[in-house]
Amino acid sequence: MKKQQNILIIGAGLCGSLLALRLGQRGYNVSVFEMRPDLRKVDISAGRSINLAFSDRGNKAMKLVGLEDQVKALCIPMHGRMIHDAHGNTFQSNYSGRTHEFINSISRGELNALLLDEAEKHENVKIYFNKKCKSVDFENTTALFKDYKSKDEFLEDADVIIATDGAGSALRKSYYLGKKFLFSFSQAYLTHGYKELSILPKDNGDFKIYKNALHIWPRGSFMLIALPNLDGSFTVTLFLSYDEGTYNFNNLTNDERVLEFFSKEFPDALAVMPNLLEDFFTNPTAPLGTIKCSPWHYKGNTLLMGDAAHAIVPFYGQGMNASFEDVVEFDAVLDENLSSWEATFKTFEKRRKKDTDAIADLAIDNFHEMKGHVNQAIFQEKRKLEMALEKQFPKDYTSKYALVTFNEDIGYREAMLRGRAQDKAILNLLADKKIDINGDLKTILEQVKQETEAILEDDRIAGLNQ
Amino acid sequence: MKKQQNILIIGAGLCGSLLALRLGQRGYNVSVFEMRPDLRKVDISAGRSINLAFSDRGNKAMKLVGLEDQVKALCIPMHGRMIHDAHGNTFQSNYSGRTHEFINSISRGELNALLLDEAEKHENVKIYFNKKCKSVDFENTTALFKDYKSKDEFLEDADVIIATDGAGSALRKSYYLGKKFLFSFSQAYLTHGYKELSILPKDNGDFKIYKNALHIWPRGSFMLIALPNLDGSFTVTLFLSYDEGTYNFNNLTNDERVLEFFSKEFPDALAVMPNLLEDFFTNPTAPLGTIKCSPWHYKGNTLLMGDAAHAIVPFYGQGMNASFEDVVEFDAVLDENLSSWEATFKTFEKRRKKDTDAIADLAIDNFHEMKGHVNQAIFQEKRKLEMALEKQFPKDYTSKYALVTFNEDIGYREAMLRGRAQDKAILNLLADKKIDINGDLKTILEQVKQETEAILEDDRIAGLNQ
Repeated sequence: MKKQQNILIIGAGLCGSLLALRLGQRGYNVSVFEMRPDLRKVDISAGRSINLAFSDRGNKAMKLVGLEDQVKALCIPMHGRMIHDAHGNTFQSNYSGRTHEFINSISRGELNALLLDEAEKHENVKIYFNKKCKSVDFENTTALFKDYKSKDEFLEDADVIIATDGAGSALRKSYYLGKKFLFSFSQAYLTHGYKELSILPKDNGDFKIYKNALHIWPRGSFMLIALPNLDGSFTVTLFLSYDEGTYNFNNLTNDERVLEFFSKEFPDALAVMPNLLEDFFTNPTAPLGTIKCSPWHYKGNTLLMGDAAHAIVPFYGQGMNASFEDVVEFDAVLDENLSSWEATFKTFEKRRKKDTDAIADLAIDNFHEMKGHVNQAIFQEKRKLEMALEKQFPKDYTSKYALVTFNEDIGYREAMLRGRAQDKAILNLLADKKIDINGDLKTILEQVKQETEAILEDDRIAGLNQ
Repeated sequence: MKKQQNILIIGAGLCGSLLALRLGQRGYNVSVFEMRPDLRKVDISAGRSINLAFSDRGNKAMKLVGLEDQVKALCIPMHGRMIHDAHGNTFQSNYSGRTHEFINSISRGELNALLLDEAEKHENVKIYFNKKCKSVDFENTTALFKDYKSKDEFLEDADVIIATDGAGSALRKSYYLGKKFLFSFSQAYLTHGYKELSILPKDNGDFKIYKNALHIWPRGSFMLIALPNLDGSFTVTLFLSYDEGTYNFNNLTNDERVLEFFSKEFPDALAVMPNLLEDFFTNPTAPLGTIKCSPWHYKGNTLLMGDAAHAIVPFYGQGMNASFEDVVEFDAVLDENLSSWEATFKTFEKRRKKDTDAIADLAIDNFHEMKGHVNQAIFQEKRKLEMALEKQFPKDYTSKYALVTFNEDIGYREAMLRGRAQDKAILNLLADKKIDINGDLKTILEQVKQETEAILEDDRIAGLNQ
């Protein structure tokens, strides 16, 4: 594909701005149209998650565009889960037995601003704000926009249109409503919604609770989590059913009920959240949905990428990382200089979709793990054993969590299949009392490996997971 | 709910006409609006599958409405799969080792006509044809229709609206586009489409190939099947990729290519299909899709049922049976006299959706089994063993196929979980050479049972299939 080609990107969020930067580096003429105002000039955080988990797959993309060090400066390492019980007792469960493996809390806004700044340094990249995409004519490779300021509508033409416009993608909607080809599509909502709250810093700017962990208050059918911010605050998120259980979003309608709920379930969190009621009744309750679709592209004209192609629930901390990895994978396909955009898009989807499907499913699994399993004895024993194995045999054992989070050279799908088999092996060996945390770790490692292989082989013979 | 209530049913296909009959029998005032002409007066078979598989779950519904004997007269028993290899050799693989267990080929049109006739015998049931539903106002429980003859549009009001309007449901579309509540929805297409062809009867009206079987020509990545009709003909269906493989729907564009394809892959079928080319180029190629959604109901106002709620691919022969079972399950909930329509709808969905989700997944599994696995030695050995076990121990062994097809008192989900574990057990025991077809059947039965239980227990411990 000739470098002089014009690429139109819809959406300048995390994925779109990274893509613009990378395609700019590659020499394409890139125009980006974003419906929101420029977040470097206006505060538009309301309603969107303020901080995010950033880990190795995302970092691989930052290396690709040469921003690893600048992004590192925005990161707060989180070495594990800090689990809070109903009495306020805490214990930490690390993410890995290898000390160099941890995840990071990062500000969505700061990271996005950095990517926009870097993209705009390229003369061949232009970014336009307040331009909302209303629809895409994927036969003619044109997109219809509305300028939020002038209220005018205008049509943009390009050689290729790539939509990185998130879960509510205009291009995806045009695919669905166009009925010009068979478009497989799913949107699946959890019965739970979420609301963002906060723990403000101490008067001296210090963190009120331990800084370097992802805090979880797991309560079986609901949970609270907290991630640190550079200013000493934590962004707290309540995940709760809309209408089931004693307390739910539909019946937490007044100060008394909210305080009753928090003092009963999260007393230690409540103690550091004097601003709870204001946050609770100011911030919106938002749904949690998974979106999958196929095909992502129409011929060589248009392509969906990032959340527009595969929105996931936040429980594996992989949403942004997966979108960034899209750009890395797309870049690798571009390196192959295939004969056409159609071949490029097709190859990209063929390689990538199995992995984004897998992380979508893993994220739902982790919803159940975080709100409940982390409280169960057998799951805690498994995690302790895995930490011990990773510490003792850093090159020979890697947990599912580590495969997904810290092994950017293994695809999500392979991580899922191997990780699930390994989890099943350990849980069954523990339940059958064939291993326990006090046993010889070398022997346990061999037993786990053997049992994992047996599980994978049994599935293969039965024609599963092919 | 008072009997004097007005129930509006959208769609008078198989599910809608059965529902109308049953609700009529229960004394409700029922109005049914159907977009097509009355199929008892006009031939409207084009483009829809002409015959269907009818089995025990469907028959349970016929018993409920007192039509078992009348429906039996329309049935042609099919005792097994007649498998045709590429040289025209055949062998039969039965559906069960118990001789009273078989499936039936039945005409969609004849069965629908019978249900319409029976429904209309009730004074409190009115059926209107040529009235297409355009949208449903589910807040106000009204539906907008267009009369295809007068071209007029009119609004119908009811106490309750139940949509049995199939995969393209107007109510489901209104749920999706309305955005008034979180509506989870998926449409997933296979890469294959289908086309209906035919084997006409001999001049004397006899069947040209064996009457009492479901014929399959499995070819790995595509297949042909044939089901008998009462008039001596077979309805033949080609399942083929749209665009992959040497031969596909997109490149079978002229007589020569179609004949080349059939003479190479299905020579024995071609020999009895002199009308192939006419059928091939007259009949449409149609897509194969699965639809799932939730919730099925809005408050106590509206409800989706049958294909409108859960369309599936045809490979388990359960589409009609599942829709008929919906009516049986709904009837059982009505028997409980819950306090409101909302409670009734909620209870129905809660009990039923897990089962319709399961049959959707099973039907996709069977697509792969029918086009490929039936040709593999280990799968054939498994089926032979299962037939022997069912014959020898009719009360102690039931295959997955039999659990799904002949055990109407076991839900689809339970059948799926048990059946899949059993399949995995047998395939692994065979692969590990722990059992073979010449062994002692009593011992094999015990081994299979033990291994199946172990698989289910391992999954339970790992938190799978909960």
